[in-house]
Amino acid sequence: MSFGRRLASRIAERESQIVLGLDPDPARLWPGADAEGQGAPAERAAAAVQAHCRALIDAAGPACVAVKPQLACFERLGAPGRMALSATVAYARDAGLLVIADGKRGDIDVTARAYAQSLYGGLETPFGAIAGLHVDLATVNPLMGIDAVEPFVEAARAIRSGVLVLVRTSNPGAADIEDLDLAGGGVVWERAAALVDQLGEAAPGAGEIADVGAVMGATVPAHLQRARELMPRALFLLPGVGAQGGRVEDLAPAFAPGRAGAVVSASRSIVGAYLQHGGSPGDAARAEAERLREAAWRLSDPRL
Amino acid sequence: MSFGRRLASRIAERESQIVLGLDPDPARLWPGADAEGQGAPAERAAAAVQAHCRALIDAAGPACVAVKPQLACFERLGAPGRMALSATVAYARDAGLLVIADGKRGDIDVTARAYAQSLYGGLETPFGAIAGLHVDLATVNPLMGIDAVEPFVEAARAIRSGVLVLVRTSNPGAADIEDLDLAGGGVVWERAAALVDQLGEAAPGAGEIADVGAVMGATVPAHLQRARELMPRALFLLPGVGAQGGRVEDLAPAFAPGRAGAVVSASRSIVGAYLQHGGSPGDAARAEAERLREAAWRLSDPRL
Repeated sequence: MSFGRRLASRIAERESQIVLGLDPDPARLWPGADAEGQGAPAERAAAAVQAHCRALIDAAGPACVAVKPQLACFERLGAPGRMALSATVAYARDAGLLVIADGKRGDIDVTARAYAQSLYGGLETPFGAIAGLHVDLATVNPLMGIDAVEPFVEAARAIRSGVLVLVRTSNPGAADIEDLDLAGGGVVWERAAALVDQLGEAAPGAGEIADVGAVMGATVPAHLQRARELMPRALFLLPGVGAQGGRVEDLAPAFAPGRAGAVVSASRSIVGAYLQHGGSPGDAARAEAERLREAAWRLSDPRL
Repeated sequence: MSFGRRLASRIAERESQIVLGLDPDPARLWPGADAEGQGAPAERAAAAVQAHCRALIDAAGPACVAVKPQLACFERLGAPGRMALSATVAYARDAGLLVIADGKRGDIDVTARAYAQSLYGGLETPFGAIAGLHVDLATVNPLMGIDAVEPFVEAARAIRSGVLVLVRTSNPGAADIEDLDLAGGGVVWERAAALVDQLGEAAPGAGEIADVGAVMGATVPAHLQRARELMPRALFLLPGVGAQGGRVEDLAPAFAPGRAGAVVSASRSIVGAYLQHGGSPGDAARAEAERLREAAWRLSDPRL
């Protein structure tokens, strides 16, 4: 099944476009998540992080279509963190969720291929096959140009997965480079958008979303309309809802191609909902994810 | 000791500005590097990669001032790869080499801090302290703007290490975004250069190199003069010599601030020298690294 059909059917099944961000901080885990660990600090922290992610997936996962592990948060725990990442990816997949690896990689061709092996289908070696994370999507940084992105697209396509290129991010600093006006007209992020449109499958099935999408920050909804013009067939990953100030209600243009046109990620607003609204961490997370799910579902068009 | 003084004294001691790139591919290791491994494929591949890097450091390290592990090549080996990375970093440090982590990370503030913890000084957790890689420099992608770079600078500065921001990379695709002409004059990479100059220490010691530097591809030496105008105090990491087509002899403007103004990285031309020139892998690597060392040393000015 093509990436676009797989995405659309998963969104339809789960009636959700919400992506559960997994950005575990060992100092802010849910109460009880630290009960299981033993061994060195990194091993104990990784075990606790893994338990925390499991609990978060159990609680909020049913209202979501995907999880988005933030690779930095696992990397800082060393080798035990890498094992916790694999285990968390597997747990999410078993719960019926798509997996979006958020690592924002980008490098020259041979190195991009190495990253892509790690994230998607793995690699053959003289020592035997080494598995990749086999994620459904991974975020990629386009600063270095098309040859830094293509190896990710090839590796993703080989396993019917997709790529999400940073186009216009949700942070204040995005204005420093991404928003610069170009001499030939337009701004820098619009060139990244053109790259996304160019690299997506030449001919996805009728009405299908292509396998190269865009990260479009939800904090500047004014950009979404223009982004849709430039990338009519692309999946938009919309971060920045909640803690960063974005509101689901402002995201309608992202859903122009239909219900599979965009996914909305939220991390801190879900995991920390109990601090804001009271109740148990799980109940509060479930309620917040469900609130976001309803808002996005209501907003989106049922054509896809 | 400040970063700039540490860099300059190390370069003076070793009479070298050569950076040994470590991009191990399990399918192209030096003969004999696969003898030690056992266990699962990833464990065996990681052990072989580690042995290969050790042999490469033993052979070519004496002609170099630093190693530059390519994080992608270790990541694709999973948790055993992460352990091989730590061991390789430690081995290089014990051999008197600086360590440049080449990961080209970049993300919103909270995530950038997590990456920086991993690369530099580690983190405190309720489970105890977790060590970082404690590298001397790490490459960072500035697409997302100043707030995606600053956390790396802070973490590096706390341990008297430095940051290398991608300014103008060595790959053909660099032209796609980095070289775009801006409406206000200049090109995109010049804005990244301005960021580098802005973020470097306010007042490094007289004649010292600042702790924020730039990756400037050696494949387009015409840019180096302009880059020096924009970043007079910055360390330049110059990749792209050898396999990518750059020549040491063309890099003079990079050394304008003196001998600690730039370091030249080479990977495939050193590790694969025996395929090109014959002889044992170690002897050929040593000879090629020494040839590069002499060429750069001769080219550079002894003021620093």
